Amino acid sequence: MFFTPRTQALPATVPFVGPEALERRLGRPFRARLGANESVFGPSPRVLAAMAEAASGSWAYGDPEQHGLREAIAAQLGLTGAHVTVGEGIDGLFGLLAQLTLDPGDTVVTSLGAYPTFNYHVSGHGGRLDFVPYRDDREDLEALAARAREIRPKLVYVANPDNPTGSWRTADEIRAFAEAVPPETLVVLDEAYSDLAPAGALPPANWLRPNLLRFRTFSKAHGMAGVRVAYVFGEPEAVRQFDKVRNHFGVSRMAQAGALAALADEAYLAEIVARIARARDILSGIARDAGLVPLPSATNFVAIDCGRDGAFARRVLEGVLAEGVFIRMPGIAPLDRLIRVTVGRDEELNLFADALDRALRAARG
Amino acid sequence: MFFTPRTQALPATVPFVGPEALERRLGRPFRARLGANESVFGPSPRVLAAMAEAASGSWAYGDPEQHGLREAIAAQLGLTGAHVTVGEGIDGLFGLLAQLTLDPGDTVVTSLGAYPTFNYHVSGHGGRLDFVPYRDDREDLEALAARAREIRPKLVYVANPDNPTGSWRTADEIRAFAEAVPPETLVVLDEAYSDLAPAGALPPANWLRPNLLRFRTFSKAHGMAGVRVAYVFGEPEAVRQFDKVRNHFGVSRMAQAGALAALADEAYLAEIVARIARARDILSGIARDAGLVPLPSATNFVAIDCGRDGAFARRVLEGVLAEGVFIRMPGIAPLDRLIRVTVGRDEELNLFADALDRALRAARG
Repeated sequence: MFFTPRTQALPATVPFVGPEALERRLGRPFRARLGANESVFGPSPRVLAAMAEAASGSWAYGDPEQHGLREAIAAQLGLTGAHVTVGEGIDGLFGLLAQLTLDPGDTVVTSLGAYPTFNYHVSGHGGRLDFVPYRDDREDLEALAARAREIRPKLVYVANPDNPTGSWRTADEIRAFAEAVPPETLVVLDEAYSDLAPAGALPPANWLRPNLLRFRTFSKAHGMAGVRVAYVFGEPEAVRQFDKVRNHFGVSRMAQAGALAALADEAYLAEIVARIARARDILSGIARDAGLVPLPSATNFVAIDCGRDGAFARRVLEGVLAEGVFIRMPGIAPLDRLIRVTVGRDEELNLFADALDRALRAARG
Repeated sequence: MFFTPRTQALPATVPFVGPEALERRLGRPFRARLGANESVFGPSPRVLAAMAEAASGSWAYGDPEQHGLREAIAAQLGLTGAHVTVGEGIDGLFGLLAQLTLDPGDTVVTSLGAYPTFNYHVSGHGGRLDFVPYRDDREDLEALAARAREIRPKLVYVANPDNPTGSWRTADEIRAFAEAVPPETLVVLDEAYSDLAPAGALPPANWLRPNLLRFRTFSKAHGMAGVRVAYVFGEPEAVRQFDKVRNHFGVSRMAQAGALAALADEAYLAEIVARIARARDILSGIARDAGLVPLPSATNFVAIDCGRDGAFARRVLEGVLAEGVFIRMPGIAPLDRLIRVTVGRDEELNLFADALDRALRAARG
């Protein structure tokens, strides 16, 4: 058989079912799309203009060295182009990372209930996952580091700010965590929500270590999830490994042009960050008005504690979906008390408030 | 160390240096870009319109099931959606294929001098390459099948039409080849240039076998190289393995919308195929006028035999590049007698003719 035993044993399940698949099942489109932590505010008009201009040049492959974009990212970080590589979303970069680091049976430590697509790529490359529970709805950095010292995994994963809880840690806590991880373990620091992090939560960009890679994306605050462009930065010796295996022409011309324009439009980013913060407050108020507890969030979503067990939260989720509002929830206890709602414009938040109200009444019976 | 020994041993070289990198080295832009087998004629205006419309929706992830595009491709092939999956170019799909099929040390058979990015992904996943020489500037199907029967590799690679020679085989020859390959070896049939294949060269789309996967792309005749969208089709049991490891959100919204529009615009495709055929004749004439021998081509490029050794062809290539015309050549003997020139518009072909004339005079000394 040409497929490896590892491939044959992999499950057919995927980390996320798309809202389009749910719509096909439900037989109608959602009225609000608040489940995938996309930015309903969209990308900057300058990004759209840059992509439109690049589109007509799309008969040509994009620059495989991603020169202009790499240099622009590096300049913004205060680093050099050798510290950065660009990929097809953080998900795509996680696949490459697993390929670069894992032999079958190698161990990887993450939090139980953390980002599932990271786990998906680890499993897809034959890695074995080892889980540390969340603590008080945050990643337990001390326990993660202790587990890393105990079993010496290839990788240890932390997201700051965190998905699916929306929580964050301080830069000092992140640094202390990385210092407590043994040098033969690579710290995978997922900073997808970095643009939305409060002051003091992000270590400075020039904080690098030989066993650290930091991942950022244009999918969240920059509103470019459907474009597929993200980057990893770290010490050049680690970053250059990606060049040995990546799909060199994988980042499209439009993605490179759009990301360059997004980086340059700092005023738009600041405006969106403010709109997200405002919408997050409204969304938290909706949860409180419904008698639920919104968790503090440093992201573009709010995790809402439904206050009972996973079965109850699942009933609430199903009720909200049935009302035509797409949201998601973590699948694993104790986080499965939560539903996770992306911020939206006022009209979308109103649709969610109404849907939540009906769903809660039905779920409470 | 967190990077595997395999990773540490991989070379830093890449299959193709982009023209942008050459331009940065030369300090000026090329006057004609005829080296990467892109379509200078560009995508259909309907593709550009569809991508422009999709761009404003790019705040949302693309459908991870690629439902509409998969179904449309399947309908055109006379197959079902389960026979097809879409990826970030054939290169991206080759990376997934290597991940799915190769354990470190597994063997893969290909032709010496065939598509290097396939080899790159095989090596990146720890595969060991075994080479069969070209014969009369075509892939030697009989020798490839014999070698597969002898060493029982995981994969055997054939391109039809072929890159870098431009040659093609008949559907009957391809079928006989596949039947001669042992059932435990997967036939990787690269049909990137299928839209340009002469009548009788392509087996019908419903010709499938359990140990066969066929790869096609929107990068060549459809003029969408910079968009990154391609597909693989075959028996559902083999195709569904890709869903276990692929980057589900990896094909952008614009790519899905653009590819759908490209499929629908059959008149444009027919027009481009005719323009490519005409340009190929002109290009072959330029080679003959210069005293060189153009190989017959079923692609959007012409391989030109410079008639001496690899060092001579390399001098010709360097001379053409120095004149501001980007072309490429195969790196391995005996194919390194050839330079490979993508078709262009008349003005680009004229630039090439002048550049070739000067380069030949200098190379002949």
